[in-house]
Amino acid sequence: MRLGRIAHPEGICFALIEGEEELVAKEIKGTPFTPPETTGREWKLDEVRLLAPTLPTKVVALGRNYADHVAEVFKESAEHLPPTIFVKPSTSVIGPGAEIKIPDFATNVEFEGELAVVISKVSKNIDPDNWQDHVLGYTICNDVSSRDLQFADGQWARAKGIDTFCPLGPWIETDLNVLDLDDAKINAYLTHDGKTEHKQDSNTNQMIVKMGGILQRISQAFTLLPGDVVTTGSPAGTAEMVPGDTIEIHIPGVGSLRNPVARA
Amino acid sequence: MRLGRIAHPEGICFALIEGEEELVAKEIKGTPFTPPETTGREWKLDEVRLLAPTLPTKVVALGRNYADHVAEVFKESAEHLPPTIFVKPSTSVIGPGAEIKIPDFATNVEFEGELAVVISKVSKNIDPDNWQDHVLGYTICNDVSSRDLQFADGQWARAKGIDTFCPLGPWIETDLNVLDLDDAKINAYLTHDGKTEHKQDSNTNQMIVKMGGILQRISQAFTLLPGDVVTTGSPAGTAEMVPGDTIEIHIPGVGSLRNPVARA
Repeated sequence: MRLGRIAHPEGICFALIEGEEELVAKEIKGTPFTPPETTGREWKLDEVRLLAPTLPTKVVALGRNYADHVAEVFKESAEHLPPTIFVKPSTSVIGPGAEIKIPDFATNVEFEGELAVVISKVSKNIDPDNWQDHVLGYTICNDVSSRDLQFADGQWARAKGIDTFCPLGPWIETDLNVLDLDDAKINAYLTHDGKTEHKQDSNTNQMIVKMGGILQRISQAFTLLPGDVVTTGSPAGTAEMVPGDTIEIHIPGVGSLRNPVARA
Repeated sequence: MRLGRIAHPEGICFALIEGEEELVAKEIKGTPFTPPETTGREWKLDEVRLLAPTLPTKVVALGRNYADHVAEVFKESAEHLPPTIFVKPSTSVIGPGAEIKIPDFATNVEFEGELAVVISKVSKNIDPDNWQDHVLGYTICNDVSSRDLQFADGQWARAKGIDTFCPLGPWIETDLNVLDLDDAKINAYLTHDGKTEHKQDSNTNQMIVKMGGILQRISQAFTLLPGDVVTTGSPAGTAEMVPGDTIEIHIPGVGSLRNPVARA
Protein backbone atom coordinates (compact mmCIF):
# COMPACT_ATOMS: atom_id res chain seq x y z
CA MET A 1 0.00 0.00 0.00
CA ARG A 2 1.25 3.48 -0.84
CA LEU A 3 0.46 6.31 1.59
CA GLY A 4 0.96 9.84 0.32
CA ARG A 5 0.13 13.34 1.37
CA ILE A 6 -1.39 15.59 -1.26
CA ALA A 7 -2.46 19.14 -1.98
CA HIS A 8 -5.78 18.80 -3.83
CA PRO A 9 -8.00 21.62 -5.15
CA GLU A 10 -9.72 22.05 -1.77
CA GLY A 11 -6.95 21.42 0.76
CA ILE A 12 -4.37 18.96 2.05
CA CYS A 13 -4.90 15.34 3.11
CA PHE A 14 -3.27 11.97 3.47
CA ALA A 15 -4.23 9.61 0.64
CA LEU A 16 -3.83 6.10 -0.69
CA ILE A 17 -1.97 6.21 -3.99
CA GLU A 18 -3.29 3.41 -6.19
CA GLY A 19 -2.80 2.13 -9.72
CA GLU A 20 0.15 1.40 -11.96
CA GLU A 21 -0.05 3.48 -15.14
CA GLU A 22 -2.80 5.95 -14.20
CA LEU A 23 -2.29 6.73 -10.52
CA VAL A 24 -5.22 7.77 -8.34
CA ALA A 25 -5.08 9.49 -4.92
CA LYS A 26 -7.88 8.44 -2.55
CA GLU A 27 -8.38 10.64 0.49
CA ILE A 28 -8.20 8.85 3.86
CA LYS A 29 -9.61 9.91 7.21
CA GLY A 30 -7.15 11.21 9.78
CA THR A 31 -3.52 10.10 9.76
CA PRO A 32 -1.67 7.15 8.25
CA PHE A 33 -0.99 5.67 11.71
CA THR A 34 -4.30 3.81 11.90
CA PRO A 35 -5.71 1.42 9.27
CA PRO A 36 -6.66 3.74 6.43
CA GLU A 37 -10.32 4.34 5.69
CA THR A 38 -11.13 6.19 2.46
CA THR A 39 -13.60 9.07 2.44
CA GLY A 40 -14.83 8.52 -1.12
CA ARG A 41 -13.07 11.63 -2.48
CA GLU A 42 -10.40 10.87 -5.06
CA TRP A 43 -8.38 12.59 -7.77
CA LYS A 44 -6.15 11.53 -10.64
CA LEU A 45 -2.58 12.00 -9.40
CA ASP A 46 -1.84 14.56 -12.09
CA GLU A 47 -4.68 16.72 -10.72
CA VAL A 48 -3.00 16.99 -7.30
CA ARG A 49 0.46 17.74 -5.95
CA LEU A 50 2.35 15.19 -3.87
CA LEU A 51 3.77 16.67 -0.65
CA ALA A 52 6.34 15.12 1.68
CA PRO A 53 4.51 11.95 2.74
CA THR A 54 5.16 12.54 6.45
CA LEU A 55 5.56 15.50 8.81
CA PRO A 56 8.52 14.32 10.89
CA THR A 57 9.55 16.01 14.13
CA LYS A 58 13.09 15.00 13.13
CA VAL A 59 14.96 13.12 10.44
CA VAL A 60 17.72 11.03 11.96
CA ALA A 61 20.45 9.75 9.68
CA LEU A 62 23.24 7.25 9.95
CA GLY A 63 26.12 8.85 8.10
CA ARG A 64 29.12 7.02 6.65
CA ASN A 65 27.12 3.79 6.37
CA TYR A 66 28.43 2.78 2.92
CA ALA A 67 32.16 2.09 2.64
CA ASP A 68 32.33 3.25 -1.00
CA HIS A 69 30.79 6.64 -0.08
CA VAL A 70 33.16 7.09 2.88
CA ALA A 71 36.07 6.57 0.51
CA GLU A 72 34.78 9.07 -2.09
CA VAL A 73 33.92 11.87 0.36
CA PHE A 74 36.43 11.46 3.18
CA LYS A 75 39.34 9.87 1.23
CA GLU A 76 39.58 7.46 4.13
CA SER A 77 38.73 3.85 4.92
CA ALA A 78 35.38 3.17 6.63
CA GLU A 79 37.31 1.14 9.21
CA HIS A 80 38.84 4.39 10.47
CA LEU A 81 35.65 6.43 10.10
CA PRO A 82 32.77 4.38 11.50
CA PRO A 83 29.09 5.27 10.95
CA THR A 84 27.87 8.30 12.92
CA ILE A 85 24.47 9.77 13.78
CA PHE A 86 23.21 13.22 12.78
CA VAL A 87 19.89 15.03 12.70
CA LYS A 88 18.18 17.02 9.93
CA PRO A 89 15.54 19.41 11.32
CA SER A 90 11.88 19.31 10.24
CA THR A 91 12.30 22.65 8.49
CA SER A 92 14.63 21.05 5.92
CA VAL A 93 11.90 18.72 4.60
CA ILE A 94 10.30 19.23 1.18
CA GLY A 95 8.18 16.97 -1.02
CA PRO A 96 8.52 15.56 -4.54
CA GLY A 97 8.80 18.21 -7.22
CA ALA A 98 9.61 21.01 -4.79
CA GLU A 99 12.73 23.06 -5.44
CA ILE A 100 15.98 22.38 -3.60
CA LYS A 101 17.02 26.00 -2.97
CA ILE A 102 20.74 26.62 -2.61
CA PRO A 103 21.74 29.75 -0.66
CA ASP A 104 24.90 31.66 -1.54
CA PHE A 105 26.86 30.46 1.51
CA ALA A 106 26.27 26.76 0.67
CA THR A 107 28.75 25.76 -2.01
CA ASN A 108 29.50 22.40 -3.57
CA VAL A 109 26.03 21.03 -2.87
CA GLU A 110 25.64 17.32 -3.61
CA PHE A 111 22.67 14.92 -3.68
CA GLU A 112 22.72 11.70 -1.63
CA GLY A 113 20.04 9.13 -2.55
CA GLU A 114 19.03 7.03 0.45
CA LEU A 115 16.50 4.41 1.51
CA ALA A 116 14.55 5.74 4.52
CA VAL A 117 11.87 4.42 6.85
CA VAL A 118 8.95 6.23 8.48
CA ILE A 119 8.35 5.40 12.16
CA SER A 120 4.85 4.15 13.06
CA LYS A 121 4.71 4.57 16.85
CA VAL A 122 6.57 5.98 19.83
CA SER A 123 9.74 3.91 19.83
CA LYS A 124 12.65 3.56 22.24
CA ASN A 125 15.31 0.83 22.43
CA ILE A 126 14.08 -0.95 19.31
CA ASP A 127 14.90 -4.67 19.21
CA PRO A 128 16.83 -5.10 15.95
CA ASP A 129 15.01 -8.36 15.22
CA ASN A 130 11.61 -6.65 15.53
CA TRP A 131 12.35 -3.37 13.77
CA GLN A 132 9.41 -3.96 11.40
CA ASP A 133 7.02 -3.44 14.34
CA HIS A 134 8.12 0.19 14.54
CA VAL A 135 8.08 1.05 10.84
CA LEU A 136 5.13 2.29 8.80
CA GLY A 137 7.00 1.81 5.54
CA TYR A 138 9.79 2.82 3.20
CA THR A 139 10.33 6.14 1.53
CA ILE A 140 13.25 7.87 -0.22
CA CYS A 141 15.41 10.60 1.31
CA ASN A 142 17.71 12.87 -0.64
CA ASP A 143 20.22 13.88 2.03
CA VAL A 144 21.31 17.09 0.28
CA SER A 145 24.71 18.21 1.61
CA SER A 146 26.97 21.20 1.09
CA ARG A 147 30.36 19.50 1.11
CA ASP A 148 32.14 22.80 1.73
CA LEU A 149 30.06 23.61 4.83
CA GLN A 150 30.29 20.00 6.00
CA PHE A 151 34.06 20.20 6.18
CA ALA A 152 34.30 23.85 7.25
CA ASP A 153 31.82 23.47 10.12
CA GLY A 154 32.97 20.05 11.29
CA GLN A 155 29.43 19.53 12.55
CA TRP A 156 27.08 18.54 9.69
CA ALA A 157 23.90 20.12 11.08
CA ARG A 158 24.09 23.19 8.87
CA ALA A 159 25.55 21.57 5.71
CA LYS A 160 22.73 19.02 5.69
CA GLY A 161 19.99 20.89 7.54
CA ILE A 162 19.46 23.98 5.41
CA ASP A 163 15.82 24.67 4.45
CA THR A 164 14.83 22.42 1.48
CA PHE A 165 17.86 20.11 1.95
CA CYS A 166 15.71 17.09 2.82
CA PRO A 167 13.45 15.99 -0.04
CA LEU A 168 11.27 13.04 1.04
CA GLY A 169 8.90 10.89 -1.00
CA PRO A 170 7.26 10.22 -3.31
CA TRP A 171 5.10 8.31 -0.78
CA ILE A 172 5.39 5.67 1.95
CA GLU A 173 5.39 2.08 0.68
CA THR A 174 4.01 0.07 3.60
CA ASP A 175 4.77 -3.37 2.13
CA LEU A 176 8.20 -4.08 3.61
CA ASN A 177 8.57 -7.03 1.21
CA VAL A 178 8.73 -4.83 -1.90
CA LEU A 179 12.49 -4.98 -1.64
CA ASP A 180 15.22 -7.23 -0.30
CA LEU A 181 17.18 -5.15 2.20
CA ASP A 182 20.29 -7.16 1.40
CA ASP A 183 19.98 -6.49 -2.30
CA ALA A 184 18.02 -3.35 -3.20
CA LYS A 185 19.19 -1.00 -5.93
CA ILE A 186 19.67 2.71 -5.25
CA ASN A 187 19.91 4.90 -8.34
CA ALA A 188 20.35 8.61 -8.82
CA TYR A 189 19.93 10.39 -12.13
CA LEU A 190 21.18 13.95 -12.53
CA THR A 191 19.90 16.09 -15.39
CA HIS A 192 22.22 18.99 -16.25
CA ASP A 193 21.91 21.13 -19.37
CA GLY A 194 19.22 18.77 -20.68
CA LYS A 195 21.49 15.71 -20.41
CA THR A 196 20.70 12.96 -17.87
CA GLU A 197 23.50 10.92 -16.29
CA HIS A 198 23.14 7.83 -14.10
CA LYS A 199 25.26 8.92 -11.11
CA GLN A 200 24.44 6.64 -8.17
CA ASP A 201 24.19 3.00 -9.19
CA SER A 202 24.58 1.13 -5.96
CA ASN A 203 22.92 -1.42 -3.74
CA THR A 204 21.91 -1.75 -0.10
CA ASN A 205 24.20 -4.79 0.05
CA GLN A 206 26.96 -2.19 0.62
CA MET A 207 25.42 -0.99 3.94
CA ILE A 208 27.74 -1.34 6.93
CA VAL A 209 25.09 -1.29 9.68
CA LYS A 210 21.85 -3.01 8.61
CA MET A 211 18.29 -1.74 9.21
CA GLY A 212 17.72 -3.43 12.57
CA GLY A 213 21.03 -2.20 13.91
CA ILE A 214 20.44 1.34 12.66
CA LEU A 215 17.05 1.57 14.38
CA GLN A 216 18.44 -0.02 17.54
CA ARG A 217 21.36 2.40 17.77
CA ILE A 218 19.34 5.53 17.02
CA SER A 219 16.42 4.65 19.33
CA GLN A 220 18.78 3.95 22.24
CA ALA A 221 19.62 7.65 22.19
CA PHE A 222 16.47 9.32 20.84
CA THR A 223 12.81 8.50 21.34
CA LEU A 224 11.39 8.19 17.82
CA LEU A 225 7.91 9.60 17.28
CA PRO A 226 5.23 8.57 14.76
CA GLY A 227 6.13 10.12 11.41
CA ASP A 228 9.81 10.58 12.24
CA VAL A 229 12.17 9.48 9.48
CA VAL A 230 15.29 7.38 9.81
CA THR A 231 17.52 7.41 6.77
CA THR A 232 20.11 4.74 6.23
CA GLY A 233 23.04 6.50 4.59
CA SER A 234 24.17 7.18 1.06
CA PRO A 235 26.13 4.87 -1.22
CA ALA A 236 28.81 6.19 -3.56
CA GLY A 237 28.10 8.21 -6.68
CA THR A 238 27.09 11.48 -5.09
CA ALA A 239 27.84 14.55 -7.20
CA GLU A 240 27.37 18.28 -7.30
CA MET A 241 24.04 19.83 -8.33
CA VAL A 242 23.68 23.38 -9.58
CA PRO A 243 20.63 25.60 -10.11
CA GLY A 244 18.77 24.45 -13.21
CA ASP A 245 19.53 20.77 -12.64
CA THR A 246 16.98 18.09 -11.75
CA ILE A 247 17.85 15.20 -9.45
CA GLU A 248 15.91 11.93 -9.38
CA ILE A 249 16.45 9.16 -6.85
CA HIS A 250 14.94 5.81 -7.81
CA ILE A 251 14.56 2.73 -5.61
CA PRO A 252 12.72 -0.14 -7.33
CA GLY A 253 9.61 -1.11 -5.37
CA VAL A 254 9.49 2.25 -3.59
CA GLY A 255 9.41 4.81 -6.40
CA SER A 256 11.12 7.90 -7.76
CA LEU A 257 11.81 11.15 -5.91
CA ARG A 258 12.48 13.99 -8.36
CA ASN A 259 13.39 17.58 -7.43
CA PRO A 260 14.53 20.60 -9.42
CA VAL A 261 17.43 22.67 -8.11
CA ALA A 262 17.23 26.46 -7.83
CA ARG A 263 19.05 29.40 -6.27
CA ALA A 264 17.59 30.43 -2.89
CA MET B 1 6.96 39.16 32.50
CA ARG B 2 7.65 35.49 33.15
CA LEU B 3 5.89 32.92 30.96
CA GLY B 4 5.90 29.34 32.17
CA ARG B 5 4.21 26.08 31.37
CA ILE B 6 2.77 24.14 34.28
CA ALA B 7 1.17 20.86 35.24
CA HIS B 8 -1.64 21.78 37.66
CA PRO B 9 -4.07 19.44 39.41
CA GLU B 10 -6.43 19.40 36.42
CA GLY B 11 -4.11 19.55 33.41
CA ILE B 12 -1.38 21.46 31.63
CA CYS B 13 -1.37 25.13 30.60
CA PHE B 14 0.80 28.14 29.91
CA ALA B 15 0.87 30.59 32.80
CA LEU B 16 2.20 33.92 33.98
CA ILE B 17 4.56 33.39 36.90
CA GLU B 18 4.23 36.36 39.23
CA GLY B 19 5.61 37.44 42.60
CA GLU B 20 9.02 37.54 44.23
CA GLU B 21 8.99 35.46 47.43
CA GLU B 22 5.69 33.59 47.07
CA LEU B 23 5.33 32.81 43.38
CA VAL B 24 1.92 32.42 41.78
CA ALA B 25 1.09 30.77 38.43
CA LYS B 26 -1.83 32.40 36.60
CA GLU B 27 -3.30 30.39 33.72
CA ILE B 28 -3.37 32.17 30.35
CA LYS B 29 -5.57 31.48 27.35
CA GLY B 30 -3.91 29.76 24.42
CA THR B 31 -0.20 30.13 23.76
CA PRO B 32 2.43 32.66 24.82
CA PHE B 33 2.74 34.03 21.27
CA THR B 34 -0.12 36.50 21.65
CA PRO B 35 -0.52 39.08 24.42
CA PRO B 36 -1.37 36.93 27.45
CA GLU B 37 -4.89 37.04 28.86
CA THR B 38 -5.43 35.33 32.21
CA THR B 39 -8.38 32.98 32.72
CA GLY B 40 -8.80 33.70 36.43
CA ARG B 41 -7.48 30.29 37.51
CA GLU B 42 -4.30 30.46 39.56
CA TRP B 43 -2.18 28.33 41.88
CA LYS B 44 0.69 28.87 44.26
CA LEU B 45 3.81 27.75 42.43
CA ASP B 46 4.50 25.01 44.99
CA GLU B 47 1.10 23.49 44.18
CA VAL B 48 2.04 22.96 40.52
CA ARG B 49 4.98 21.58 38.57
CA LEU B 50 6.92 23.75 36.14
CA LEU B 51 7.41 22.07 32.76
CA ALA B 52 9.76 23.12 29.96
CA PRO B 53 8.45 26.62 29.19
CA THR B 54 8.29 25.97 25.44
CA LEU B 55 7.66 23.03 23.11
CA PRO B 56 10.36 23.65 20.50
CA THR B 57 10.43 21.84 17.17
CA LYS B 58 14.21 22.12 17.46
CA VAL B 59 16.87 23.54 19.75
CA VAL B 60 19.67 25.07 17.71
CA ALA B 61 22.96 25.74 19.43
CA LEU B 62 26.10 27.64 18.61
CA GLY B 63 28.89 25.46 19.95
CA ARG B 64 32.42 26.63 20.79
CA ASN B 65 31.17 30.19 21.38
CA TYR B 66 33.28 30.86 24.51
CA ALA B 67 37.06 30.79 24.10
CA ASP B 68 37.65 29.55 27.67
CA HIS B 69 35.33 26.55 27.10
CA VAL B 70 36.97 25.70 23.75
CA ALA B 71 40.31 25.57 25.56
CA GLU B 72 39.07 23.33 28.38
CA VAL B 73 37.22 20.81 26.19
CA PHE B 74 39.20 20.76 22.96
CA LYS B 75 42.66 21.71 24.29
CA GLU B 76 42.85 24.07 21.35
CA SER B 77 42.59 27.79 20.68
CA ALA B 78 39.21 29.14 19.58
CA GLU B 79 41.01 30.80 16.67
CA HIS B 80 41.61 27.34 15.22
CA LEU B 81 38.20 25.97 16.20
CA PRO B 82 35.58 28.58 15.32
CA PRO B 83 31.94 28.43 16.53
CA THR B 84 29.82 25.74 14.89
CA ILE B 85 26.09 24.99 14.68
CA PHE B 86 24.39 21.84 15.96
CA VAL B 87 20.83 20.73 16.67
CA LYS B 88 19.29 19.08 19.74
CA PRO B 89 16.03 17.28 18.89
CA SER B 90 12.71 18.09 20.62
CA THR B 91 12.78 14.69 22.33
CA SER B 92 15.82 15.76 24.40
CA VAL B 93 13.87 18.56 26.15
CA ILE B 94 12.85 18.30 29.83
CA GLY B 95 11.67 20.91 32.32
CA PRO B 96 12.91 22.14 35.68
CA GLY B 97 13.15 19.44 38.35
CA ALA B 98 12.92 16.58 35.84
CA GLU B 99 15.65 13.95 35.94
CA ILE B 100 18.58 14.01 33.53
CA LYS B 101 18.75 10.27 32.79
CA ILE B 102 22.15 8.93 31.79
CA PRO B 103 22.12 5.70 29.75
CA ASP B 104 24.95 3.17 30.08
CA PHE B 105 26.51 4.02 26.71
CA ALA B 106 26.84 7.75 27.54
CA THR B 107 29.91 8.20 29.71
CA ASN B 108 31.61 11.32 31.06
CA VAL B 109 28.39 13.35 30.97
CA GLU B 110 28.87 17.05 31.70
CA PHE B 111 26.51 19.99 32.26
CA GLU B 112 26.81 23.17 30.19
CA GLY B 113 24.92 26.19 31.51
CA GLU B 114 23.81 28.52 28.71
CA LEU B 115 21.71 31.60 28.08
CA ALA B 116 19.02 30.74 25.53
CA VAL B 117 16.28 32.60 23.67
CA VAL B 118 12.81 31.44 22.64
CA ILE B 119 11.72 32.44 19.13
CA SER B 120 8.44 34.38 18.84
CA LYS B 121 7.54 34.06 15.15
CA VAL B 122 8.50 32.37 11.91
CA SER B 123 11.98 33.78 11.31
CA LYS B 124 14.40 33.58 8.41
CA ASN B 125 17.47 35.73 7.66
CA ILE B 126 17.22 37.67 10.92
CA ASP B 127 18.76 41.14 10.80
CA PRO B 128 21.30 41.13 13.65
CA ASP B 129 20.31 44.66 14.63
CA ASN B 130 16.65 43.66 14.99
CA TRP B 131 17.03 40.27 16.65
CA GLN B 132 14.74 41.39 19.51
CA ASP B 133 11.80 41.42 17.06
CA HIS B 134 12.12 37.64 16.73
CA VAL B 135 12.57 36.73 20.39
CA LEU B 136 9.85 36.06 22.95
CA GLY B 137 12.34 36.11 25.81
CA TYR B 138 15.26 34.52 27.61
CA THR B 139 15.42 31.12 29.23
CA ILE B 140 18.21 28.83 30.46
CA CYS B 141 19.46 25.75 28.61
CA ASN B 142 21.59 23.03 30.14
CA ASP B 143 23.33 21.60 27.08
CA VAL B 144 24.05 18.20 28.66
CA SER B 145 26.86 16.47 26.75
CA SER B 146 28.54 13.07 26.92
CA ARG B 147 32.15 14.07 26.24
CA ASP B 148 33.10 10.48 25.37
CA LEU B 149 30.36 10.16 22.72
CA GLN B 150 31.09 13.68 21.45
CA PHE B 151 34.65 12.74 20.59
CA ALA B 152 33.97 9.12 19.57
CA ASP B 153 31.11 10.04 17.18
CA GLY B 154 32.71 13.20 15.75
CA GLN B 155 29.17 14.43 15.18
CA TRP B 156 27.61 15.80 18.39
CA ALA B 157 23.98 14.91 17.63
CA ARG B 158 23.97 11.82 19.83
CA ALA B 159 26.26 13.07 22.64
CA LYS B 160 24.05 16.13 23.09
CA GLY B 161 20.69 14.88 21.81
CA ILE B 162 19.95 11.91 24.08
CA ASP B 163 16.50 11.95 25.70
CA THR B 164 16.53 14.28 28.77
CA PHE B 165 19.83 15.96 27.71
CA CYS B 166 18.18 19.37 27.18
CA PRO B 167 16.76 20.84 30.40
CA LEU B 168 15.04 24.18 29.67
CA GLY B 169 13.56 26.69 32.09
CA PRO B 170 12.54 27.66 34.63
CA TRP B 171 10.37 30.00 32.50
CA ILE B 172 10.69 32.59 29.72
CA GLU B 173 11.62 36.08 30.89
CA THR B 174 10.16 38.38 28.24
CA ASP B 175 11.83 41.57 29.48
CA LEU B 176 15.01 41.62 27.38
CA ASN B 177 16.39 44.39 29.60
CA VAL B 178 16.68 42.16 32.68
CA LEU B 179 20.28 41.54 31.74
CA ASP B 180 23.12 43.22 29.88
CA LEU B 181 24.13 40.85 27.10
CA ASP B 182 27.66 42.20 27.28
CA ASP B 183 27.92 41.53 31.01
CA ALA B 184 25.56 38.82 32.30
CA LYS B 185 26.73 36.23 34.81
CA ILE B 186 26.32 32.52 34.12
CA ASN B 187 26.69 30.29 37.18
CA ALA B 188 26.46 26.54 37.62
CA TYR B 189 26.32 24.82 41.02
CA LEU B 190 26.87 21.08 41.22
CA THR B 191 25.75 19.19 44.31
CA HIS B 192 27.56 15.88 44.78
CA ASP B 193 27.39 13.77 47.95
CA GLY B 194 25.53 16.60 49.69
CA LYS B 195 28.26 19.14 48.94
CA THR B 196 27.60 22.05 46.55
CA GLU B 197 30.42 23.53 44.43
CA HIS B 198 30.29 26.66 42.29
CA LYS B 199 31.54 25.22 38.99
CA GLN B 200 30.68 27.67 36.22
CA ASP B 201 31.34 31.27 37.20
CA SER B 202 31.49 33.07 33.88
CA ASN B 203 30.01 35.94 32.00
CA THR B 204 28.44 36.54 28.59
CA ASN B 205 31.23 39.07 27.97
CA GLN B 206 33.25 35.99 26.95
CA MET B 207 30.94 35.19 24.00
CA ILE B 208 32.70 35.11 20.63
CA VAL B 209 29.63 35.64 18.39
CA LYS B 210 27.04 37.95 20.00
CA MET B 211 23.26 37.41 20.07
CA GLY B 212 22.43 39.24 16.84
CA GLY B 213 25.14 37.39 14.97
CA ILE B 214 24.09 34.03 16.37
CA LEU B 215 20.47 34.50 15.29
CA GLN B 216 21.54 35.84 11.90
CA ARG B 217 23.85 32.91 11.19
CA ILE B 218 21.40 30.22 12.35
CA SER B 219 18.36 31.72 10.59
CA GLN B 220 20.26 31.99 7.30
CA ALA B 221 20.31 28.19 7.26
CA PHE B 222 17.19 27.16 9.18
CA THR B 223 13.74 28.70 9.35
CA LEU B 224 13.09 29.21 13.06
CA LEU B 225 9.54 28.51 14.25
CA PRO B 226 7.62 30.01 17.20
CA GLY B 227 8.78 28.24 20.35
CA ASP B 228 12.09 27.08 18.87
CA VAL B 229 15.08 27.64 21.12
CA VAL B 230 18.45 29.09 20.18
CA THR B 231 21.14 28.57 22.78
CA THR B 232 24.28 30.65 22.79
CA GLY B 233 27.04 28.31 23.90
CA SER B 234 28.62 27.36 27.18
CA PRO B 235 31.38 29.19 29.03
CA ALA B 236 34.15 27.33 30.86
CA GLY B 237 33.63 25.44 34.10
CA THR B 238 31.70 22.44 32.77
CA ALA B 239 32.20 19.27 34.78
CA GLU B 240 31.02 15.69 35.04
CA MET B 241 27.70 14.82 36.68
CA VAL B 242 26.89 11.38 38.03
CA PRO B 243 23.59 9.82 39.15
CA GLY B 244 22.60 11.25 42.52
CA ASP B 245 23.96 14.74 41.75
CA THR B 246 21.87 17.86 41.30
CA ILE B 247 22.86 20.57 38.84
CA GLU B 248 21.61 24.16 39.06
CA ILE B 249 22.23 26.81 36.42
CA HIS B 250 21.62 30.37 37.57
CA ILE B 251 21.46 33.50 35.42
CA PRO B 252 20.59 36.66 37.39
CA GLY B 253 17.41 38.26 36.02
CA VAL B 254 16.33 35.03 34.34
CA GLY B 255 16.23 32.48 37.16
CA SER B 256 17.51 29.08 38.25
CA LEU B 257 17.20 25.79 36.37
CA ARG B 258 17.74 22.83 38.70
CA ASN B 259 17.72 19.16 37.68
CA PRO B 260 18.59 15.95 39.50
CA VAL B 261 20.74 13.36 37.71
CA ALA B 262 19.73 9.69 37.54
CA ARG B 263 20.63 6.49 35.73
CA ALA B 264 18.39 5.81 32.69
